[in-house]
Amino acid sequence: MTDKEVPLRAEDVAGWHRSLSNWERFGPGDALGTLHLVTPEKRRAAAALVRSGRAVGCARPLDTAASPDNLRPALHFMIGTATEGYGGDWLGVAPHGYAVSHIDALCHIFHEGRLYGGHPIDRVTAHGALELGIEALRDGVVSRGVLLDVPRLRGVPWLEPGEAIGPDELEACEAAAGLRVEPGDVLLVRTGRWAARAALGAWDPHERLAGLHARCLPWLHARGVAALGCDGVSDVVPSQVEGVRLPIHSVAIVAMGLHLLDNLDLERLAAACAEEARHAFLLTLAPLVLEGGTGSPLNPIALF
Amino acid sequence: MTDKEVPLRAEDVAGWHRSLSNWERFGPGDALGTLHLVTPEKRRAAAALVRSGRAVGCARPLDTAASPDNLRPALHFMIGTATEGYGGDWLGVAPHGYAVSHIDALCHIFHEGRLYGGHPIDRVTAHGALELGIEALRDGVVSRGVLLDVPRLRGVPWLEPGEAIGPDELEACEAAAGLRVEPGDVLLVRTGRWAARAALGAWDPHERLAGLHARCLPWLHARGVAALGCDGVSDVVPSQVEGVRLPIHSVAIVAMGLHLLDNLDLERLAAACAEEARHAFLLTLAPLVLEGGTGSPLNPIALF
Amino acid sequence: MTDKEVPLRAEDVAGWHRSLSNWERFGPGDALGTLHLVTPEKRRAAAALVRSGRAVGCARPLDTAASPDNLRPALHFMIGTATEGYGGDWLGVAPHGYAVSHIDALCHIFHEGRLYGGHPIDRVTAHGALELGIEALRDGVVSRGVLLDVPRLRGVPWLEPGEAIGPDELEACEAAAGLRVEPGDVLLVRTGRWAARAALGAWDPHERLAGLHARCLPWLHARGVAALGCDGVSDVVPSQVEGVRLPIHSVAIVAMGLHLLDNLDLERLAAACAEEARHAFLLTLAPLVLEGGTGSPLNPIALF
Amino acid sequence: MTDKEVPLRAEDVAGWHRSLSNWERFGPGDALGTLHLVTPEKRRAAAALVRSGRAVGCARPLDTAASPDNLRPALHFMIGTATEGYGGDWLGVAPHGYAVSHIDALCHIFHEGRLYGGHPIDRVTAHGALELGIEALRDGVVSRGVLLDVPRLRGVPWLEPGEAIGPDELEACEAAAGLRVEPGDVLLVRTGRWAARAALGAWDPHERLAGLHARCLPWLHARGVAALGCDGVSDVVPSQVEGVRLPIHSVAIVAMGLHLLDNLDLERLAAACAEEARHAFLLTLAPLVLEGGTGSPLNPIALF
Repeated sequence: MTDKEVPLRAEDVAGWHRSLSNWERFGPGDALGTLHLVTPEKRRAAAALVRSGRAVGCARPLDTAASPDNLRPALHFMIGTATEGYGGDWLGVAPHGYAVSHIDALCHIFHEGRLYGGHPIDRVTAHGALELGIEALRDGVVSRGVLLDVPRLRGVPWLEPGEAIGPDELEACEAAAGLRVEPGDVLLVRTGRWAARAALGAWDPHERLAGLHARCLPWLHARGVAALGCDGVSDVVPSQVEGVRLPIHSVAIVAMGLHLLDNLDLERLAAACAEEARHAFLLTLAPLVLEGGTGSPLNPIALF
Repeated sequence: MTDKEVPLRAEDVAGWHRSLSNWERFGPGDALGTLHLVTPEKRRAAAALVRSGRAVGCARPLDTAASPDNLRPALHFMIGTATEGYGGDWLGVAPHGYAVSHIDALCHIFHEGRLYGGHPIDRVTAHGALELGIEALRDGVVSRGVLLDVPRLRGVPWLEPGEAIGPDELEACEAAAGLRVEPGDVLLVRTGRWAARAALGAWDPHERLAGLHARCLPWLHARGVAALGCDGVSDVVPSQVEGVRLPIHSVAIVAMGLHLLDNLDLERLAAACAEEARHAFLLTLAPLVLEGGTGSPLNPIALF
Repeated sequence: MTDKEVPLRAEDVAGWHRSLSNWERFGPGDALGTLHLVTPEKRRAAAALVRSGRAVGCARPLDTAASPDNLRPALHFMIGTATEGYGGDWLGVAPHGYAVSHIDALCHIFHEGRLYGGHPIDRVTAHGALELGIEALRDGVVSRGVLLDVPRLRGVPWLEPGEAIGPDELEACEAAAGLRVEPGDVLLVRTGRWAARAALGAWDPHERLAGLHARCLPWLHARGVAALGCDGVSDVVPSQVEGVRLPIHSVAIVAMGLHLLDNLDLERLAAACAEEARHAFLLTLAPLVLEGGTGSPLNPIALF
Repeated sequence: MTDKEVPLRAEDVAGWHRSLSNWERFGPGDALGTLHLVTPEKRRAAAALVRSGRAVGCARPLDTAASPDNLRPALHFMIGTATEGYGGDWLGVAPHGYAVSHIDALCHIFHEGRLYGGHPIDRVTAHGALELGIEALRDGVVSRGVLLDVPRLRGVPWLEPGEAIGPDELEACEAAAGLRVEPGDVLLVRTGRWAARAALGAWDPHERLAGLHARCLPWLHARGVAALGCDGVSDVVPSQVEGVRLPIHSVAIVAMGLHLLDNLDLERLAAACAEEARHAFLLTLAPLVLEGGTGSPLNPIALF
């Protein structure tokens, strides 16, 4: 984090809830938020990026082992085995766990009693969300994906848990990658989290996690980022904003309608970007269609 | 079904297990089967198909209601609601259910004590499959998708449950679509199942389901289909082959290493193909990465 | 149902919510309701009933098959089998399903925004009930159990779905059994539901189910029943009270603090009572201790 | 552990598999094992023990928090809350977890390819156990319960993890309690595990757990114990027998047909025994009826 000047306060975040709001931008009843910036033209242009035909997935394997960052492990049970004469199974998953690669639906986060677009929070019931469920993305998201590889910029294998990334560093990554984040892009920011975990063992991400400083919010808005992914949860933890635990989750999802992709595994994508010598690619997100769901496990597929 | 000449027997299917086998084709330890036919060049060419930028998902929403075709309903429970201050949930799903859009891993089906490639079936244990699990597809599948719309060819809203499709009819669909299925394609065959269900109510698909006649197997092999999807389970039910319940599942998965995509929702894709006046598109499959899993729920994304 | 005089109205039920209320009876913060009537003396007296030493369980096996009365089937998956070297499994159950033998916690039912004792309903959150959870019964319930066998009285194998039982018939059963229901008893009422299901197949219990008419409520209160069990859900369905679907659930749980035991299997208990020539016995309920739970699957054990 | 003379070897355990076997004792097809020792007379005599009418449950609350001794936490999700108008929930549990109070079915443990009674282990399939499932106990277990409180004997709050209890110490506990364990008793042995956990935090019970030394096996057989419970898993960990991890599980379940009750919470029972000045009581076990199940969560109810 290089923006150390003046610490942010809750009022700053509250201000962004107003100044960065897209509630009036995409028409009444909007359920897609900044995904509107992914136009058919944008998709066409993204497809035109394909050159080598190399495909890379960005999902961490679903993790059935309890650990400090996986308190609600995935369940994987077999229904059919050698004995039954076929292979069959059953899967249980809490998408928002800190070790699960997933996408947040816009109903995932609340602010002052409201969801994105102003829906009252009691629309999120024990029978599922009645507004802004993940089924809004049943046609998936296809756009240009851009990887900003912060450890590579810094020349380190990973950012230490708790280290923050500011907008200036995002721009330095852009420069190093020879590109500029543009409207409709799905921006992926690598912190090297899973490399750190492989080396150091699991830790509690509620306490420390590398990620973006809240100061990046106006930058994300200005650039027209359509969706934001990270190998952490985008937010740096602690947030460095007193009284606000996850300011990026709060402003991005509730004010901007910007979908977040959490806990992606960007290690192999980073290696592919290095080998392909390019940091932009066709990216496809294919969430499960769960009506009233607050998110979905996700395996983003990059195609170079 | 127009191939009514001589009924097939179990010996014919056994013969195809030998004559259509790809066990020696893709090298030792192969876990991808006919997905090897999706080369980087194939992916590039598929991306070059994108013209309008229209995206269409092919997943049926996960279905939490018990019904004759959904005996193990999906579970969707809320962890967080208005009261808790965030929206969170939990999902349980048996991928191979007859109402779940999913992909079969190559470990899903056995034949004479063997999996694809000859692995003994005891490699599929109550702790998951030790070979050929769905994690082999962690980089997804991106290729040309082709929709063959049989009800459209026949001029009917849907095929009746139990009606079979033969290779001649697949070729008639090709002709009507002005294309030819080629090596590496992901072939999607529409029977209109979900339109039928919407009109008629749910029925037991163990008893009757429209699909491909086993006679299509040599054709699929000859054309080099990389993966086969259907709004049913590809196999017609009953199979019309005495003593073999699902011959396409058996030969395609175990002998050919050809992944099947079952219970897709192809209604909206068919409408899009009609409107776009084309039946080929870029198709992305993004299975969840479940180590040792026998399949995954799936939302295939077509891009025109 | 023999009480056909004047149909009940919602106002009658509302009146019982007041006149049969135990909210002030057992002291502030009460979480046990009429289980207070099961005193140590009552337990001693119940134990003194034991003569033959015959034990009979009253749970229907957990049912993993979807059916019209089992829309959320139990899940039973194996973790360990022959292959793994030990037998292990995993169980998922929705206790309140219509085919699950279970006990209702006092937080299960609401009336006019209140739980038993006046707690506001927002104490039942997506994180569990903060009041009146089933953990209040962690020491179980041990008392005299009494079976009133209505089909036996009527000389029929079972009551037809939808047939009601009035207080006069309960008293006729008492007379036939040569006993009187007394304060602190756990009263079990047999309708023969599972015999009917075995003969007729499953039906939708939301439409028709034999059970007690709401007119029994004052009688249950007067007799001091501590808990009420049935092979249905105690309430007759339809309720014969316009505008109130389950009046016994409503008044018994919310006003009286009377725990209900639903969907018990009383067939073998009835046979044992006939053979032992007695309809009273020592009964033990041992709910699982689930903090914040709204109920528990249950296997009541009768000892003659 | 006071029996420190000669360390046990795997051969000793193998010898007990023969010398303590009950395979021929209770007739062909037996599914109850030593529970046959709980005769109707035994139940009658147990009921006659009731004096004060005090009831105490012995289940630890189901634990939804991941920890080193709870790697597969219970799942508790709400189906109905204030918003839905009723309280409803769903429970998922892996009975054999090290923090779950449960009973082991006789199909839980294998030895040399066999279950109790000689059934081959392939009778335990991914569809459940075809022999010796927990449904054999659908009528519950009612007998005399006896608590042997080892920390009380030693004058310590708890045994240290890994400390062993030998048969001489069991007899010293008997003497202190003024009773003798007799045929058909359900024996409960307290190590103080949960008091230790409350004071020290959770640890990995695969590494260290107080419990009975394998040398107790002949003693359990000689006394005719019908079922054995513990606040650990009965076995001391490590077992002090080279090459055999859980000798008591192995010999008790497979050779003797002796059901084990693991991870009970005996703290409140111990306090009640002290206050009541007696260590024998009526004990009721009411397992869930899960056909093919390898065990059940359990809340044993003691009645003084």
